Amino acid sequence: MAKKEKDVNRRPAARLPKGMRDIGAAELRETQAMLEKIRAVYERYGFEPLETPAFEYTDSLGKFLPDQDRPNAGVFSFQDVAPEARDTTGNEQWLSLRYDLTAPLARHVAENFQDLPKPFRRYATGSVWRNEKPGPGRFRQFTQFDADTVGAESIAADAELCMLAADTLEALGIERGQYVIKVNNRKVLDGVLDSIGISGPEHSSKRLVVLRAIDKLDRLGVDGVKQLLGAGRKDESGDFTEGAGLNEDQVRKLIVFASLQDGLIPLEDVTDIPPQDRSARGEVSVFKSSDGNSSFFAESNKGVLDGLQVHFGRNEISRAGIFELQELAELAEAAGYGRDRIRIDPSVVRGLEYYTGPVFEAELLIPATDDKGNPVRFGSVGGGGRYDDLVARFTGQKVPATGFSIGVSRLQAALTALGRAPAPALGPVVVTVMDRDSLADYQAFVHTLRDAGIRAELYLGNPKKFGRQLEYADKRGSPVVVIQGSNEREAGEVILKDLIEGAKAAAAISDNKEWKEARPAQISVPVANLVEAVREILARHTPSSS
Amino acid sequence: MAKKEKDVNRRPAARLPKGMRDIGAAELRETQAMLEKIRAVYERYGFEPLETPAFEYTDSLGKFLPDQDRPNAGVFSFQDVAPEARDTTGNEQWLSLRYDLTAPLARHVAENFQDLPKPFRRYATGSVWRNEKPGPGRFRQFTQFDADTVGAESIAADAELCMLAADTLEALGIERGQYVIKVNNRKVLDGVLDSIGISGPEHSSKRLVVLRAIDKLDRLGVDGVKQLLGAGRKDESGDFTEGAGLNEDQVRKLIVFASLQDGLIPLEDVTDIPPQDRSARGEVSVFKSSDGNSSFFAESNKGVLDGLQVHFGRNEISRAGIFELQELAELAEAAGYGRDRIRIDPSVVRGLEYYTGPVFEAELLIPATDDKGNPVRFGSVGGGGRYDDLVARFTGQKVPATGFSIGVSRLQAALTALGRAPAPALGPVVVTVMDRDSLADYQAFVHTLRDAGIRAELYLGNPKKFGRQLEYADKRGSPVVVIQGSNEREAGEVILKDLIEGAKAAAAISDNKEWKEARPAQISVPVANLVEAVREILARHTPSSS
Repeated sequence: MAKKEKDVNRRPAARLPKGMRDIGAAELRETQAMLEKIRAVYERYGFEPLETPAFEYTDSLGKFLPDQDRPNAGVFSFQDVAPEARDTTGNEQWLSLRYDLTAPLARHVAENFQDLPKPFRRYATGSVWRNEKPGPGRFRQFTQFDADTVGAESIAADAELCMLAADTLEALGIERGQYVIKVNNRKVLDGVLDSIGISGPEHSSKRLVVLRAIDKLDRLGVDGVKQLLGAGRKDESGDFTEGAGLNEDQVRKLIVFASLQDGLIPLEDVTDIPPQDRSARGEVSVFKSSDGNSSFFAESNKGVLDGLQVHFGRNEISRAGIFELQELAELAEAAGYGRDRIRIDPSVVRGLEYYTGPVFEAELLIPATDDKGNPVRFGSVGGGGRYDDLVARFTGQKVPATGFSIGVSRLQAALTALGRAPAPALGPVVVTVMDRDSLADYQAFVHTLRDAGIRAELYLGNPKKFGRQLEYADKRGSPVVVIQGSNEREAGEVILKDLIEGAKAAAAISDNKEWKEARPAQISVPVANLVEAVREILARHTPSSS
Repeated sequence: MAKKEKDVNRRPAARLPKGMRDIGAAELRETQAMLEKIRAVYERYGFEPLETPAFEYTDSLGKFLPDQDRPNAGVFSFQDVAPEARDTTGNEQWLSLRYDLTAPLARHVAENFQDLPKPFRRYATGSVWRNEKPGPGRFRQFTQFDADTVGAESIAADAELCMLAADTLEALGIERGQYVIKVNNRKVLDGVLDSIGISGPEHSSKRLVVLRAIDKLDRLGVDGVKQLLGAGRKDESGDFTEGAGLNEDQVRKLIVFASLQDGLIPLEDVTDIPPQDRSARGEVSVFKSSDGNSSFFAESNKGVLDGLQVHFGRNEISRAGIFELQELAELAEAAGYGRDRIRIDPSVVRGLEYYTGPVFEAELLIPATDDKGNPVRFGSVGGGGRYDDLVARFTGQKVPATGFSIGVSRLQAALTALGRAPAPALGPVVVTVMDRDSLADYQAFVHTLRDAGIRAELYLGNPKKFGRQLEYADKRGSPVVVIQGSNEREAGEVILKDLIEGAKAAAAISDNKEWKEARPAQISVPVANLVEAVREILARHTPSSS
């Protein structure tokens, strides 16, 4: 007894590590289908696949997490104890699981620079790992799908990635108008911050507060952001968040900048071009803002860019950024991608500390509500931008690079929440076992079905209780079971039981006796007609692909 | 200067971790195609996909490495520092990267036992990691593709996996006769070891020496193995390997057992059935062995099983194993899988310590030679077997399980070495940039091609040197480049340069002047005909699928 207890104590509990999850058949099949669709678009754009290992030397990865929200985001690290992996001083080297697909790309490019075609265009997909506090819907392993162009200074490379992002979302069944690719430029914001005097290294923590405040414009509105940029803000619960401590003029400039997100520009700030002229040119619509002040709403990227130019074009850094955005918008426009798909939006600040030029963010616009009927925003399902410093970490040589990454897990979760997940696939045909001695016969039925390309399996559990076999078939989502008892064997027949039809019929029949007599959705067919008869039933239950 | 040097010293070297590798486009595309083919077979057999995370709590994984050759095989482990991941005593818990896909399956089954359909049939693919000494062709990350049935005691489950293995290899283009699925049973060997008196726990190290000796039969022949089972063996280089120290009778029995691998049974050991009778029944062929002694060669699984029965059927443990193998062979035979595909082979000892019943090994038989013309054996490209103890680690409850795993990386390496890898895919159409100001026009050509489903890209490097653009297209394996200078623009035309045809023509033209005049493989077409003309060229260079 004592021994037994000890054994029990020594048994490990079967549990997943925190923040990890198992993914079942229905979701995995959908992921697989998504990856194929994304791959097809990336391939069509001429990107080539590359796979790098799951972990790298820690010093290769560096600390380049793009997500501002999680500055302390960690990695999973361990030491390589293999003697041949020691460094020149005999120390064990640290390894880390990759936290994105970009850092390993930088290592690959630096390591193989001479041999690569330049520009180097590669796509990659796989798991990445973040050693972060897990939460609901927030896992420590998830899937990304990236495309990057390394060695191209041309803004055409950035424009192309925005188009790729749009095409990819449409390939995944998200209709035009249900998503948007927002584009900003690090340089524009840098110039704005420069123009209000907080560009130096001594202001770095203040800049972080500013970026976070701007990022909350959608949620808190102009007044909330004004407070966060100024003295601070008390929320409904009474909690106080300290502000950036900027003066009124600084705050006003930042609000104008951030308000350009939807092209909403206070009329009094625009003095050079009469709005009615612009309106006549079809670029803007004039309308009143809610507080009664005149405003104009730019309906084209050009309108937003003109607004940026008017307000911030005097700063040299901003001007360079605005020019890049202009070129990007024109290239997109020339290929037919207007503001409905690729939108210049100065409020995008996510990852701005990481990127060095244009920044992209793919956002779903599909309206949705949570359980309580409140509107839900799915936010970003992908993003990217230009990062010209990454390879230089290794080589000292600046190599221009730009990339886009789809958060596959995140996008899939959003589509599922929207009810866009496809219906689960049919389970296999299950051949039941009535008579253990005829196992080889049953196996032969299975084989015949598989040879005809039909998903099929033999019931492999204990066949004693026939009801268990039907329960099993039900649980597997099997559309049809094959049954042969001794009577059928003598007659050279099999019984096919249509489980889907049967379930419908069962719902309509209230009486147990009536059920037994009717035996709904059950037919006998000659063994020779097995494949044909099963195909007929399957055809009834397979939704026709449109 | 000093500062600069310091910077250089702080830069990490761009290098892969030891034993890891980057995988390029051609190989990855082939892997992808292989995974799809394997998936299709596993699906047809009714298995459902499941994905578990890359790492698990170390105590969940246990130490169940199936490979006898690498008993010290290690895992990559690290501690979870997240506060919420501490165990009940507040300690940080150890995590390990999975070393196979079976241990995580056991955890999943134990954790979700009540909710799973039983039997539970799942397939899984993904990377696994081994913290082992890397070597040529031996990496620390590789891909497996597994199918397992949990909760089925029936040998039909094992038989099915052998058929699945055969079907999978054929789906991958390996013809019948070029592979074999070898099957053995742990119980048979256990009985043999029992019958020669080395079954107790005190003989475990001796048994390991015996298993390793038997595993070398192919390489060392009967005499070499005899030495390893007895006093020991000195190889050609003079190195001495200590033997198992068995006596003559013990060695003889083991040699008979192992020699049954090809059904080769010394005639003097078979007294109960005259070989000519068997020969008449078509099960065996009588022939002389090389040393002049009569032997018979069993051409059917039944022949081998009879041989096992004759020699080892008196031992109870062996007898149970032989019976299982008989049932497996009969089920396979009934489905049309004869000894040419599924072969009972007592010499298979790989993983026997790990499995508890039938053991499978998929082996390529394709003859190949290395650079020096010596014959090369690719050996095992997959394996599996029955393991009834794995889930019991967690729950204490025995759950019968059996599985098969394809070593995708290993199989692919073998197929590549055999020259079976498909020709690399064509690169994208490259639209060149003659005139920077017309970037939007060039981009529009790219867009038109992509819209027509043609892989295409704009040259995104510095367009100054046109030769660089052609070099780039060449390096990318581009079949055709699109060129439009100002002359062509005025004429509403584009030039298409067929790079593949061009390379052939260039090889035939010796003179530079002649080349410039001929401009081989270059045509002008109206812009409106771009897609059509590119399609024609692509069709010329795309091998027709048979």
